[in-house]
Amino acid sequence: MATAADMDAMRRAVVLAARGLGSTSPNPVVGCVITDASGHVVGEGFHQRAGGPHAEIHALRAAGVLARGGTAYVTLEPCNHTGRTGPCAQALTEAGIARVVYAVADPNPQATGGADALGAAGVDVVHGLLEEEAEAGNIAWLTSVRLGRPYVTWKYAATLDGRIAAADGTSRWISSPESRADVHRLRAESDAVVVGSGTMRADDPHLAVRGIEGATQPLRVVLDTNAAAVRPGARVLDDAAPTAVVVADDVPAEEFLPGETWTLRRATGGGIDIPHLLSTLHQAGVRSVLLEGGPTLAGSFVAAGAVDRVIGYLAPVLLGAGPAALADAGITTITEALRLHVTETERIGTDLRITATVPKGA
Amino acid sequence: MATAADMDAMRRAVVLAARGLGSTSPNPVVGCVITDASGHVVGEGFHQRAGGPHAEIHALRAAGVLARGGTAYVTLEPCNHTGRTGPCAQALTEAGIARVVYAVADPNPQATGGADALGAAGVDVVHGLLEEEAEAGNIAWLTSVRLGRPYVTWKYAATLDGRIAAADGTSRWISSPESRADVHRLRAESDAVVVGSGTMRADDPHLAVRGIEGATQPLRVVLDTNAAAVRPGARVLDDAAPTAVVVADDVPAEEFLPGETWTLRRATGGGIDIPHLLSTLHQAGVRSVLLEGGPTLAGSFVAAGAVDRVIGYLAPVLLGAGPAALADAGITTITEALRLHVTETERIGTDLRITATVPKGA
Repeated sequence: MATAADMDAMRRAVVLAARGLGSTSPNPVVGCVITDASGHVVGEGFHQRAGGPHAEIHALRAAGVLARGGTAYVTLEPCNHTGRTGPCAQALTEAGIARVVYAVADPNPQATGGADALGAAGVDVVHGLLEEEAEAGNIAWLTSVRLGRPYVTWKYAATLDGRIAAADGTSRWISSPESRADVHRLRAESDAVVVGSGTMRADDPHLAVRGIEGATQPLRVVLDTNAAAVRPGARVLDDAAPTAVVVADDVPAEEFLPGETWTLRRATGGGIDIPHLLSTLHQAGVRSVLLEGGPTLAGSFVAAGAVDRVIGYLAPVLLGAGPAALADAGITTITEALRLHVTETERIGTDLRITATVPKGA
Repeated sequence: MATAADMDAMRRAVVLAARGLGSTSPNPVVGCVITDASGHVVGEGFHQRAGGPHAEIHALRAAGVLARGGTAYVTLEPCNHTGRTGPCAQALTEAGIARVVYAVADPNPQATGGADALGAAGVDVVHGLLEEEAEAGNIAWLTSVRLGRPYVTWKYAATLDGRIAAADGTSRWISSPESRADVHRLRAESDAVVVGSGTMRADDPHLAVRGIEGATQPLRVVLDTNAAAVRPGARVLDDAAPTAVVVADDVPAEEFLPGETWTLRRATGGGIDIPHLLSTLHQAGVRSVLLEGGPTLAGSFVAAGAVDRVIGYLAPVLLGAGPAALADAGITTITEALRLHVTETERIGTDLRITATVPKGA
């Protein structure tokens, strides 16, 4: 039975876990709270970066001997394997933890078994407390384990009538300064930011995180299929963050710019093959992608079934002409429409931010 | 000095006033609360329909002798003229009301002067309590008095990417049943509902209010510039609500269908001249218009500076192709964009309803 105190502790662990977003890949985000035998919080921790200690270890260190006889609340099932760090199940047992409450089972075949190991060692194990919240907080990593590709968030900024620029192409500024600042938070929580050649040509974007102290910079990925959009001096080529320029594998190498170039398959439509891109990113350790591309690239992602979440910054502006936020996604009739669930709406400056997710199996 | 009790009473008067929305034109909506000398509410009323008693008279009747020495809270300055009913200022004085608190001054030159008359009769008069709320509740009528044309609300339903139909024209249903029911409330609060020939041909809409008991039906207005879109048997031609079919004044009368046909000027672009339409509606007593037209007609209204409020039902759906919610409004570059203020956002079923208003002077 979960008590109100159990709920509070797990809720705190979920909040702690979120602090790792954007810096733990290819590992999950995990938060841990330890209470002593009388229920007082004596340790907290979260997984900060791959290769560093797991959340449980941080929390056990903080708790010290006070952990003995206490309870550990963990957002993800403690691991049972020795990777760059030792198994957490063993560390919890050795610290004298009497009870482990975890939210989400570990779907990773390499790491699973922690709950069984704890049970075998005589620890009281409870599974599923605040599972939905903890899963939502770890959705990028969980999705990437299940699908073998990163979790993709498509972000766009548009007018109320769905346009991203006026008829003459001008777009500065449709969205408010607060919305533009919020995008830097999204970048900081993502492992990679992806744009296409259209956005590259139109905006010469920088794509690095600005204004967030201690943020881990995402990998900047530019899909430049024909090696024609990224020019020397492009802002993405600076050293503010790593950058990969992706060109089709049929483009002669002498057309590549100096720097990291990835050659990937060309899709039938002419652009980079999206599934090939995503599996390559996954192999590179990328678990979450922020798609900041324009309407054409976003259409390719939607057509490939590769959008998991949509975050729209809607500005209370009307244009009546100009490009729409989303171009051809292979949808021709209403029954084929991609239907999402609105999970959050929030006023950001003068704009409205809408978050919607694609239901599993859609 | 306004007390908390004053605020409560006026807030109640604003709520009462809203009950008249859609049925009082060409009169304003007005609410009235009367408290006795010790501050207890003894009477309430609102203006229900043109020609019927004003809000103050309803409230005075409910209060009876208890009004003597009491306070009347009215959302609009009490009138001082004899129209179809006698002057409210006089009725309040004769009932022995000691204090009148009103929110908004009457801008109508025929009716103004009530506050002065009350003051001359020795009544304590306070102006401006909850003026902003009361003005918002009466915005259609106030706007129509100021501009000599109805207040126009453009309503649309679109996908997250701003489309009102798929590439093949299918659109049933983009928005949720709850959103569609909400539109009937908007119609019931409006004096007229306007569509163009495109919507007429695509949807054969009915445009009457369904599912709201006691609702006053709006005037259904179809802009059928060339007398070619409304065919015999069209659903708007039934007797559920009055209907006006508007054709250009250069179309031969033998092409008109039987029924009420208005002939108005043709604009340079080929459609009905929007200012001429609005002044004609105003003369017909219409103070609020719900524009349910498609992208072309909405574009003409925006271009004419004739949209005061936008209510968008956004469905969490992506299409990537299909017509946008708003077509050519004469805006070609971002600095010419129509910028609004978001005044409300609300989840309606699975959709999101966004209300935004055009700032005065925009």
